[in-house]
Parts: sequence; structure tokens; C-alpha cells
Amino acid sequence: MDFRTDFKPVTVQPQEIEEKSFEMITEEFGPHDYAEEQYKVVQRVIHASADFELGRSLVFHPDAVQAGIQAIRSGKPIVADVQMVQVGISKPRLEKFGGEVRVYISDPDVMQEAKRLNTTRAIIATRKAAREADGAIYAIGNAPTALLELIRLVKEGEARPGLIIGVPVGFVSAAESKEELLKLDVPFITNIGRKGGSPVAVATVNALSLLAERQG
Amino acid sequence: MDFRTDFKPVTVQPQEIEEKSFEMITEEFGPHDYAEEQYKVVQRVIHASADFELGRSLVFHPDAVQAGIQAIRSGKPIVADVQMVQVGISKPRLEKFGGEVRVYISDPDVMQEAKRLNTTRAIIATRKAAREADGAIYAIGNAPTALLELIRLVKEGEARPGLIIGVPVGFVSAAESKEELLKLDVPFITNIGRKGGSPVAVATVNALSLLAERQG
Repeated sequence: MDFRTDFKPVTVQPQEIEEKSFEMITEEFGPHDYAEEQYKVVQRVIHASADFELGRSLVFHPDAVQAGIQAIRSGKPIVADVQMVQVGISKPRLEKFGGEVRVYISDPDVMQEAKRLNTTRAIIATRKAAREADGAIYAIGNAPTALLELIRLVKEGEARPGLIIGVPVGFVSAAESKEELLKLDVPFITNIGRKGGSPVAVATVNALSLLAERQG
Repeated sequence: MDFRTDFKPVTVQPQEIEEKSFEMITEEFGPHDYAEEQYKVVQRVIHASADFELGRSLVFHPDAVQAGIQAIRSGKPIVADVQMVQVGISKPRLEKFGGEVRVYISDPDVMQEAKRLNTTRAIIATRKAAREADGAIYAIGNAPTALLELIRLVKEGEARPGLIIGVPVGFVSAAESKEELLKLDVPFITNIGRKGGSPVAVATVNALSLLAERQG
């Protein structure tokens, strides 16, 4: 007996898989109130998480998508809170506009400073990003403390992000940090609740860079 | 007015946040049928996803946890399907036993071979892992084709994994690949349905390496 009769053929190409997935998502998602370009982000987040509840929890500042596209097309950097976000983001589309993805959390000076001040590396990394990455898109998928610190720096006029993607996951401070973000009048993309994570941050950036490319 | 009155203090340390999170998870999770060490994995997956439904969907082969601990303590490699999984896994505990995390999907020879055979890089990377990483723990968070190919290689006697962590996410083939894995009599950890992803694979490996360390 040939056991391979159990198997569906696995010759489908990544591009076909993605197209088929997006059709399934749109069919199951049904009617919604997202603007067309916002929905491109929602769809890609659902694609990355297989979680419709998470997709429906996304909230967009009215200027968010356009601000994100503009930042990418101007070659502004993407600041990732952790390496998982950095490696997941698709680079070629960013590089076409002169952009890159930075992550500061494992920089030796950040680690030393966090130790010295007895605080989290995420907080110190956010301060460094604010100094070095004006107009950046912040993609925060993990550390609520990074998002809270960024909000504080924005209020103090010490950080000028082009867009804040604030989707940390977790049980302590994640949902609360997003509630603080919702009060800011700067372009943001976030979600309500505890869910989120690196793949959500990655999917959001990748959706925006695809939109940036198509607007060319 | 000092806007910072809005803020809860963000001086909590990562270790405290984790402990508090784990208490919250156990309280909300309630009674369950997982063995004690299996629950350590479930708990860490929920911690990484804030998704109880996902946590409850985890399924363990009866030998899975012990096989994973044994592989780690023997210094067997972890094979990650994508770089996001590789960078997320905590390295120091693995290195203590001589282990490391490998990812083959961006190797030049894998990319060339996939192009030549008109198939996915994930499939060719899995074949390379089977040749080079005997007894490894496979941590598959993304590519259903990697999991399907690994299952095929196991059935053909061409791959001898120590443990298969098969938690690809997605709409096409992800759930189906896990159903195939459930039929194998090799140590596996998987979940029912479309959900999964890099953070689930990472959390599973990290939970196992913590258990391996404690068994020392």
C-alpha cells in the first residue's frame, strides 16, 4: 500500500496559497466598516493569525494607513521592539524606498543602561529609537513597556513617530497600554484587548509596504 | 497638569510580569486534563498568544514532553522552519546542553534546489534537515508544506525526529497537516485547527528547555 494516497499534493506555490487564503478570509469575514486600505491590513493580520476575533479587534486612527504609506515611501525606518518582528518584516519593498528595519533592544549600550537604571531593556531601547529614528514607524508586538514609554515620549515631545503600530500581547499591561494609545492624536494602529504579538506587527507592516508599492 | 498621572508605573521587571501572567492564566484556565508537564507548555503558549482557545487546542503524543526534554538534554539541535522561530527561542538553556537552533530555509543551496524543482523552500529545507539533524526537535510554526514533507520523510524512514512540534498557522493546509501529524506514532505536540504560528512554536520549545533545566 502506498501511504502517499493519504496526501494532498503539496506542490501549491506560496503565492497561490496566499491568494486562496485571502479569498477564504474575505468570505468568512463578511460585511465590515473598515475602509478599503484598512481592510488590507485586517486581512493580512487574520492571514497571519487565523484569528477573526483578533482581526475584528483592530482599531485605526483615521490618518494611520496613509501615514504609514507615506513613511515607507519616504524611506523612514521601521523600529521593531524585538528581533522576531525585525526578521519577519519583508525587506525588499522597504529597501526600494530606502527604508530599513531597526531593533535596539539587544544593543550593548541599551543593555548596560537598563541594568544601571534597573528598568526594562524595552524602555531604554524606545528612548534610543526616539533619539535616532525621527518619523519612524514603530512596530511593537511584544513589550507593553515599550509602548507605554513611547506614548510618554510623544506626550513630552521627545518622540515624533510617523506611525505607531501598538499590538503587544499579554496579560500584564498589554491591553492597558493600548487603551493609552487610543487616547493619543497621532497616527496609530492598535487592537482592543490582550491579543497581539510579533506576527500581528509584522503583518501590519507588510500590508502597509504592499500598499506603498501599489501607490507608486 | 502632569499627564503622567494617567500612567501606571512601568517599573515592573520582566520576571515579575511573567509570574503574574502565569497566575492569571492558571486562574482563568480552570480545571483541565493535561499532565503537569504538558500544562507547563500549554501555559506558556497561552502566555505568548493571550488565547485560551489556542491553548486548549493543544494535543500531546503521550511521549512528547519527555522526548523533548531528552532531546534537549542530549544536545540535539532544534530545527526551526523560519527565522522568526529561530530568533524567538531562548538559546542559553539549549547551549548549556550543547544544543543550538538551526534554520535551513534561506540557505543558498535550499533556495537553488527549490527553484530547480519548482517547489517550496520549506520542503527542500525539511529534506536538508532530515539529512543533517538526526534526532532533532522540529519546531514548525508557519509552513504546512514543511510539516507535510516531514511526515512523509518519517513514513519513508528518511527522517528520525526526536520530537515534532507541528503548529503551522493558516487557511490552506495548516489544519490538514496537523491531522496527518496526529496519525503518526512519533512524539509530537500539535494543535487542532488553523491557529498556531511562530510564537506558539517558540513558547513550546522554551517551555521544554525550562523543564529540561529543572530536571538537571
